[in-house]
Amino acid sequence: MAKLIEYKDMNPRAKAVVDGIARARGADPADINNVWKALARHPDIMEGFAAELKAAMAPGKLDGLTKELVYLAVSMANQCEYCITSHGYMARKKGMDEEMFGEFIAVVLAAQKGNKIATAYRVPVDAAFEEK
Amino acid sequence: MAKLIEYKDMNPRAKAVVDGIARARGADPADINNVWKALARHPDIMEGFAAELKAAMAPGKLDGLTKELVYLAVSMANQCEYCITSHGYMARKKGMDEEMFGEFIAVVLAAQKGNKIATAYRVPVDAAFEEK
Amino acid sequence: MAKLIEYKDMNPRAKAVVDGIARARGADPADINNVWKALARHPDIMEGFAAELKAAMAPGKLDGLTKELVYLAVSMANQCEYCITSHGYMARKKGMDEEMFGEFIAVVLAAQKGNKIATAYRVPVDAAFEEK
Amino acid sequence: MAKLIEYKDMNPRAKAVVDGIARARGADPADINNVWKALARHPDIMEGFAAELKAAMAPGKLDGLTKELVYLAVSMANQCEYCITSHGYMARKKGMDEEMFGEFIAVVLAAQKGNKIATAYRVPVDAAFEEK
Amino acid sequence: MAKLIEYKDMNPRAKAVVDGIARARGADPADINNVWKALARHPDIMEGFAAELKAAMAPGKLDGLTKELVYLAVSMANQCEYCITSHGYMARKKGMDEEMFGEFIAVVLAAQKGNKIATAYRVPVDAAFEEK
Amino acid sequence: MAKLIEYKDMNPRAKAVVDGIARARGADPADINNVWKALARHPDIMEGFAAELKAAMAPGKLDGLTKELVYLAVSMANQCEYCITSHGYMARKKGMDEEMFGEFIAVVLAAQKGNKIATAYRVPVDAAFEEK
Repeated sequence: MAKLIEYKDMNPRAKAVVDGIARARGADPADINNVWKALARHPDIMEGFAAELKAAMAPGKLDGLTKELVYLAVSMANQCEYCITSHGYMARKKGMDEEMFGEFIAVVLAAQKGNKIATAYRVPVDAAFEEK
Repeated sequence: MAKLIEYKDMNPRAKAVVDGIARARGADPADINNVWKALARHPDIMEGFAAELKAAMAPGKLDGLTKELVYLAVSMANQCEYCITSHGYMARKKGMDEEMFGEFIAVVLAAQKGNKIATAYRVPVDAAFEEK
Repeated sequence: MAKLIEYKDMNPRAKAVVDGIARARGADPADINNVWKALARHPDIMEGFAAELKAAMAPGKLDGLTKELVYLAVSMANQCEYCITSHGYMARKKGMDEEMFGEFIAVVLAAQKGNKIATAYRVPVDAAFEEK
Repeated sequence: MAKLIEYKDMNPRAKAVVDGIARARGADPADINNVWKALARHPDIMEGFAAELKAAMAPGKLDGLTKELVYLAVSMANQCEYCITSHGYMARKKGMDEEMFGEFIAVVLAAQKGNKIATAYRVPVDAAFEEK
Repeated sequence: MAKLIEYKDMNPRAKAVVDGIARARGADPADINNVWKALARHPDIMEGFAAELKAAMAPGKLDGLTKELVYLAVSMANQCEYCITSHGYMARKKGMDEEMFGEFIAVVLAAQKGNKIATAYRVPVDAAFEEK
Repeated sequence: MAKLIEYKDMNPRAKAVVDGIARARGADPADINNVWKALARHPDIMEGFAAELKAAMAPGKLDGLTKELVYLAVSMANQCEYCITSHGYMARKKGMDEEMFGEFIAVVLAAQKGNKIATAYRVPVDAAFEEK
């Protein structure tokens, strides 16, 4: 299990990252989730990931829920239990209901099968699909 | 490279699958893409995948583009070049422009980093994220 | 692409490995396949892999074809095109016909789906399945 | 951990799937294993997987044990603990003894090494291995 | 294949990233390698990756060659041919000779086997290995 | 969980492997770690892995710590928790301090991102990187 550092024991740079996240969520910094307690060992990595995540997940031309589903799809493909759980939670908070979750998993499973078919039969890429 | 079977050489069951796909796309069965030419060796698997794909990708509570992005995210995580190319093409046909593609990749990269952080630090799942 | 060393240019230790493989197959050492031409750079690794492969693939309580199918299944799951091609060839030489290949792929795809379902839903292991 | 639905709380479609599985195994539906309790949330996916699994795993030209070993090989390559445990159990029920399990793991490890060698050295596919 | 943007056709932000890399290498910006020609589509991602890469790979308490070997090990495990080739080149430039390359691959293969043994046998983590 | 065999219950071949490891570490064979208790079921595999690991990890032109970092990098990429924990422990014993661990993870994350960028954009290998 990770060596986790509680908020009160974090150094100032790590605390500042947690403060920013807690403020955006309207939550207590002491309740910050485990990934940040683990990252607090290495403030450089922590600051970099917090900034990258914030920029990537902010609604843009793709809305917030779509972005969560993309994050969740990658996490399922990569078999990251922590991320499946945390971003499943985020997706539900952003509007994913049980029916959407079922549709989402159906696509993940179809993609998984399509990926494996392409591999098993060594299918060459069609020229028609290439970007111009 | 895959052993590919051209439409004219397919057996009736395989032809029927291709006919259904070509009709839905308003395309010529002879122009069917390579994955179906490869699957034509095994009509059982071909019929099963065509049916699963059609059901999974049909717009429901999640729209067609969102489903393509989920499919594409899984394919990138799994490093399936055929699927990245074919479903990148489908996503563009369903409305993904260059800016959305950039946002999409940013989420994929953030997810990839988040997945690896959770692994590298062995972060335990927070109870707060669990489904009730 | 790999830096490949032709048989005539290999050092004595690498040549000895190739001689052993060629003799077992009743083939010309000059026709040895690419993986050995690549490994010839590092005779230690080459000797180790040749010995491990020979011991693992020899018929035992599991017959030669079953072992090829297991090897092929791992290679498909890992998306190793070289190994899918070379061990697909070996499996056909040991008796895999087109119908068996179809059945084999159907199992690989079912396993792939089962694996992903277990991950996506985070299914806990049943106590009943544990070894005593 | 998965949100699991006990048999008595399943909807009729999910119950029907479990009844079919329990009947085939001569077992009590209440003892159904966790993957089905998790899938009961989404009857479409559950029915699809039950049908695909039943068709894929039925003895054909490949016998039942060989199919279990292929399933197990994929699950080990994909690092799916649930599937390693459940299909390890199934393989033992279908005749895998300790010696066969040792031979099986030796092949999995050799394949894993062969896959990684092909990747590390970027070995090009030999023309001789291609299907005609 | 990637849609590649040549240096002369890049927008100013992308050009600035390439200028920085070329200057550090004492090379002509027009000879920049393909990954940057591909990333030039999305300057945000390009700037972020250039900065992250520069910070991560700079010699620190770990020297430059050790960092290249860690990068190469990840790329082999992930089967990224582009990265195996580019960082293999970088490692050789930073001092990796043929003998070191052989030792490196031997460790990668041993790790791969150790990983798969832990998975296949479902080995529980020893308490003695946990960080205090 | 693995079926683990305690040292006192191992057969002579397995005991001999453990004796060799314990002697090299100046430790009590009864305290051998879990991977060897699991492997004791299959002495052939156990002997093979012990010999391969010993040869691969011995200091050569690459020092012991560098080799541990390569092993750890592969294990993180492959998401092997057992190996991350055990070889994290070994790396700390061989001199990895907290700062080096932070630098190491930064490289792993940069590599992971580079790998995924190459995949997502389908970047073709530059001719300049090829080995002569």
